[in-house]
Amino acid sequence: MALFNTKVDPKANKLTLAIDIGGTKMAVGLVDADGNASHVDRTPSPANQRGDAMWDALNRLLDKVLDDAGNPEITGVGVGCAGPMIWPEGVVSPTNIVGWREFPLRRKLKERFPGIPVRLHNDAICMAIAENWKGAAAGHQNALGMVVSTGVGGGLIVGGRLVDGGFGNAGHIGHIVIDPEGPACRCGGRGCLEAISRGPATVAWAVEEGWKPHNSSDPLDAKTLAADAHEGDEIAIAAYRRAGWAVGVGLASCAALLDLDVAVIGGGLVQAGDILMAPMKQAFDEHAGMTFVKRMKIVPAELDQLAGVIGAAALFAEDDRYWSAGD
Amino acid sequence: MALFNTKVDPKANKLTLAIDIGGTKMAVGLVDADGNASHVDRTPSPANQRGDAMWDALNRLLDKVLDDAGNPEITGVGVGCAGPMIWPEGVVSPTNIVGWREFPLRRKLKERFPGIPVRLHNDAICMAIAENWKGAAAGHQNALGMVVSTGVGGGLIVGGRLVDGGFGNAGHIGHIVIDPEGPACRCGGRGCLEAISRGPATVAWAVEEGWKPHNSSDPLDAKTLAADAHEGDEIAIAAYRRAGWAVGVGLASCAALLDLDVAVIGGGLVQAGDILMAPMKQAFDEHAGMTFVKRMKIVPAELDQLAGVIGAAALFAEDDRYWSAGD
Repeated sequence: MALFNTKVDPKANKLTLAIDIGGTKMAVGLVDADGNASHVDRTPSPANQRGDAMWDALNRLLDKVLDDAGNPEITGVGVGCAGPMIWPEGVVSPTNIVGWREFPLRRKLKERFPGIPVRLHNDAICMAIAENWKGAAAGHQNALGMVVSTGVGGGLIVGGRLVDGGFGNAGHIGHIVIDPEGPACRCGGRGCLEAISRGPATVAWAVEEGWKPHNSSDPLDAKTLAADAHEGDEIAIAAYRRAGWAVGVGLASCAALLDLDVAVIGGGLVQAGDILMAPMKQAFDEHAGMTFVKRMKIVPAELDQLAGVIGAAALFAEDDRYWSAGD
Repeated sequence: MALFNTKVDPKANKLTLAIDIGGTKMAVGLVDADGNASHVDRTPSPANQRGDAMWDALNRLLDKVLDDAGNPEITGVGVGCAGPMIWPEGVVSPTNIVGWREFPLRRKLKERFPGIPVRLHNDAICMAIAENWKGAAAGHQNALGMVVSTGVGGGLIVGGRLVDGGFGNAGHIGHIVIDPEGPACRCGGRGCLEAISRGPATVAWAVEEGWKPHNSSDPLDAKTLAADAHEGDEIAIAAYRRAGWAVGVGLASCAALLDLDVAVIGGGLVQAGDILMAPMKQAFDEHAGMTFVKRMKIVPAELDQLAGVIGAAALFAEDDRYWSAGD
């Protein structure tokens, strides 16, 4: 794969080592200044192991990708990592990675790659900037990127620039309140979007209503639930309707607060298609009153599995838009 | 009153003619580059009259203020006006001003003051930037300014800059959804913060619950309701609790979405004091789960009646932060 342009462009020969770390898997790849990814490889995250297992697995994957690519010169290391984190220090405590509590990921990577700048942001932020740079929100100045998966996260672009917030936590759409009397949220609040719409909450609601997988050997997860919904299971359909409804209400609130052009929705639950998206759009339409709110488009994500590494690279390739902290 | 500094500062001798237009009254004043207001005068808005009454009343007030000040040289005309509006064109259709429907206020003022730039924004935006420039949010990079009054509005500063949104409508915190099954909102949506917490809605709720003013000659308004609440009227207290509760839930959502440092609350209902503010803070505490959400301070506005004109002047005096459109 050709990674370099032939014409002389000061950014053209810059290559970012891009890392995407989640509770299920981690991905590493090389991304050029135009957003082309190559040598992307993945490995499962040993997220339930304490000690050095995560760091060791990451280093093995880094070695493998760099070896496969012939150890090219890299000009930056970009990282999207599950949160929460202390930002921009990059001290991470991902909810779903038990071995990393206040783990100094950014500093460890600086030691691993001396002399090379390391930049790190929330994984949902990386998804949002990837979609704004090269995906479904390209060309828009005011956009939300969000993920509906094991958690519900997001990132915001306003006036063409990423919103970091005071401590790098802006974009947490999963914790806007949808139903003030709703279920307790693992954040400590109540009725948050995430407490209603995240995959495990959606599955738990269905189980409580009496849903059992049609194929009894299938796992009790969002994918099985979606398959059963597509076969007409009414509880499964109602569970996705509930999840989609809450996302739609949240989108109406975001559009009112920020006068956005577009919302890009990605993540595992979106794979369910219209059983999630149709009630989402219906709830949005019901709650979007003013013309400027109604105008916000809701579209599926385009970059899928590559969003994480492309967004991590965007922290360098488009740093005037997406990186406000120092190196 | 001394309007000018004696030392040579390129901005020091700049004087903005600042205009604040609402459905109840309009205010005009002169504001220097340091945010000092002088010659501020007010007149009731003939908001229920059709035709030219509003424009004529504004012009009489402008003439009076300029005459009183000795017709000084002004370098800009800044305007905060009730919305909605088409922005930055400044074509206004304020909900509570029946004579102005798609009224080209910015163009009319440019004709009235040839050669002088005219800048116009939503009145709640002007309140927010005034509090960020010279009030309770001064020195903060990430702030919400909001007004709880006949309507519920707001403005957002993130990363030190005003958020305009795609069409100048960012900051509409009054239309985030608090209770998806709640009352219909005049915006066309349902369960919006404004539909629950605005003064007339709070009064209407109390009346429906059986509240009658203790002094039967007092008007059925938020001020009378507050007075009765302070005398221990349980329905009046419950009405303010309901209004404050909804604002607190909305603040938790904003803090989660934007990682804000401070929220400044102004407007008529805030005059009620703790009967509004205590349930507001209680609801915020209940719904603010994560550390970065909890950290947001909630403080009362400082600039009161002057916020509108000071914010209108900030569109010039601090245009690198607060004005992104052309002249």
